[in-house]
Amino acid sequence: MPSNRQILLASRPTGFPTEANFRLVEAPIPAPGEGQFLVRNRWLSLDPYMRGRMDAVKSYAKYVEIGEVMVGGTVGEIVSSRHPQFAAGEFVTGRLGWQEYALSDGAGIAKVDPKGAPLSYALGVLGMPGITAWMGLLDIARPKSGETVLVSAAAGAVGSVVGQLAKIAGCRAVGIAGGAAKCDHVVRELGFDACVDYRRGALHEDLKAAVPDGADVYFDNVGGETLDTALRHMRDFARITICGLVSQYSATEAYGLRNVRSILVHRIRMEGFIVSDRMALWPRALAELRDHVAAGRIRYRESVVQGLENAPRAFLGMLRGENFGKQLVALS
Amino acid sequence: MPSNRQILLASRPTGFPTEANFRLVEAPIPAPGEGQFLVRNRWLSLDPYMRGRMDAVKSYAKYVEIGEVMVGGTVGEIVSSRHPQFAAGEFVTGRLGWQEYALSDGAGIAKVDPKGAPLSYALGVLGMPGITAWMGLLDIARPKSGETVLVSAAAGAVGSVVGQLAKIAGCRAVGIAGGAAKCDHVVRELGFDACVDYRRGALHEDLKAAVPDGADVYFDNVGGETLDTALRHMRDFARITICGLVSQYSATEAYGLRNVRSILVHRIRMEGFIVSDRMALWPRALAELRDHVAAGRIRYRESVVQGLENAPRAFLGMLRGENFGKQLVALS
Repeated sequence: MPSNRQILLASRPTGFPTEANFRLVEAPIPAPGEGQFLVRNRWLSLDPYMRGRMDAVKSYAKYVEIGEVMVGGTVGEIVSSRHPQFAAGEFVTGRLGWQEYALSDGAGIAKVDPKGAPLSYALGVLGMPGITAWMGLLDIARPKSGETVLVSAAAGAVGSVVGQLAKIAGCRAVGIAGGAAKCDHVVRELGFDACVDYRRGALHEDLKAAVPDGADVYFDNVGGETLDTALRHMRDFARITICGLVSQYSATEAYGLRNVRSILVHRIRMEGFIVSDRMALWPRALAELRDHVAAGRIRYRESVVQGLENAPRAFLGMLRGENFGKQLVALS
Repeated sequence: MPSNRQILLASRPTGFPTEANFRLVEAPIPAPGEGQFLVRNRWLSLDPYMRGRMDAVKSYAKYVEIGEVMVGGTVGEIVSSRHPQFAAGEFVTGRLGWQEYALSDGAGIAKVDPKGAPLSYALGVLGMPGITAWMGLLDIARPKSGETVLVSAAAGAVGSVVGQLAKIAGCRAVGIAGGAAKCDHVVRELGFDACVDYRRGALHEDLKAAVPDGADVYFDNVGGETLDTALRHMRDFARITICGLVSQYSATEAYGLRNVRSILVHRIRMEGFIVSDRMALWPRALAELRDHVAAGRIRYRESVVQGLENAPRAFLGMLRGENFGKQLVALS
């Protein structure tokens, strides 16, 4: 008889997490009660925000308790249902966690059309990361044609879409990524105009060359020194979207941002946002992203590891920036 | 025969300026050429931005050259004119610098109505500082009735108007100021709901008591540690107006802002602005401020020193926060 493999938060990390912070367990596969359905998860998404949920600190969302299943976005197939609006055989996406099976009452669940795009895209370009890119760029930063858009973690699930949406909007797109291979991918495959490799250790000088007249938009996924350096390369009336601070999630001491003066001198608008605050825009964003993907205007790359047992290792690799594009775990 | 006393920038400061950075000289009173007029300055305004102009660094405005008259806003009377739109006996305000007489061709000059309010108000609540408060609060931060507005340098020319405009808009107004006497003035005379004395050295704890549910707006005039601490007390969707960074103007090393995470967690919009970018709003702002002052809804306090020779000392005192309200120099 098959069981439900789950990964629990075993302990809270101090600084950078380790595999010991997670524990794989086996549980019985639950049966749906009235108004519930059972999902077999096919894909698990690994995202930087999960690092924040491992700490017992106040944030915009509740953290994971010790012994709880790790939080995570999933796509799966309904295997049995006692819910009037969901039927066996349908595909759904939601936050069903790091596990192979999950019960749901439908809250926070959306159906996924398995035609037109791979199922896994619902966790990336056609899901939270893609929608995040769309909202943070088009609803917050609002670049105008001809402007220059700079984006960090440019080879990642969000950054890669930001740059391609910027190109579609008529902007010059410049990425920041870690390593020559990622930069090469960002320019040659994703069509960015330029990409700066921060691992060369000369980000300020390299940005001077890549955005000699400064950037009108900076879409920030990493925070810390990268954000501080980018602040030295902003034009008057620039907009900075604070989407993530991945460099800071495991920092035991917060980075001190020195170039705050640039916000005043260049009259910069810096804004933090969270995709769930703007759910009303989701259908429009998703429809546009679907069109762009179908037409080949947005290219999309996934890093896949096989098996739930490998999720912790892949998650740690993603936090270190080892993944290329959207990091996924294929389940079963 | 009278001469024109002027104060020149004698040398560039390293860190906090001294009186030795200024030099008082006497020059002949110039005669207006065709299309010019001669102004006898009555009032000189001393403002934090002047510290920035003493450094040879790129900013939104050109710095002062060594040997040049220090830049500064003035109100004065036209004593002779060869300009068709300006007549002797009229009062004008502009940036005619730290000197008793100045020629002008009318560029950047506005006439001042000597009725209704004291002439000197054109350098304060009815001039650049008052308009700055109006724009930074009402056009940038846009508080809604019932929200809490926090403002630093609350006893100063800008901050005092910000808090009173917040009260008029139906908000709770909380100031940050240096010393018990200033805080007392801010609450008792200006009508703020509370004021925190940062010199007590317990700003975080004192803000916890003064804004227990956090602030919806923070109007920042000082930057540095005050801004960093305020970031710990912002509510979701708060707006931070970056109007000035007076704590940083003389800093040899920039303060490192640690609480950047708050921008993301609370989805904060932080925006720098300069009054001259929004000149189209000036007439509306000025008309509203005039009404408020005339009706007694905005109270306004000036610190006056007598004589141009005392301007450097008063300027240094203002940078140290020794003034109470708008710092002016009475000329002649």
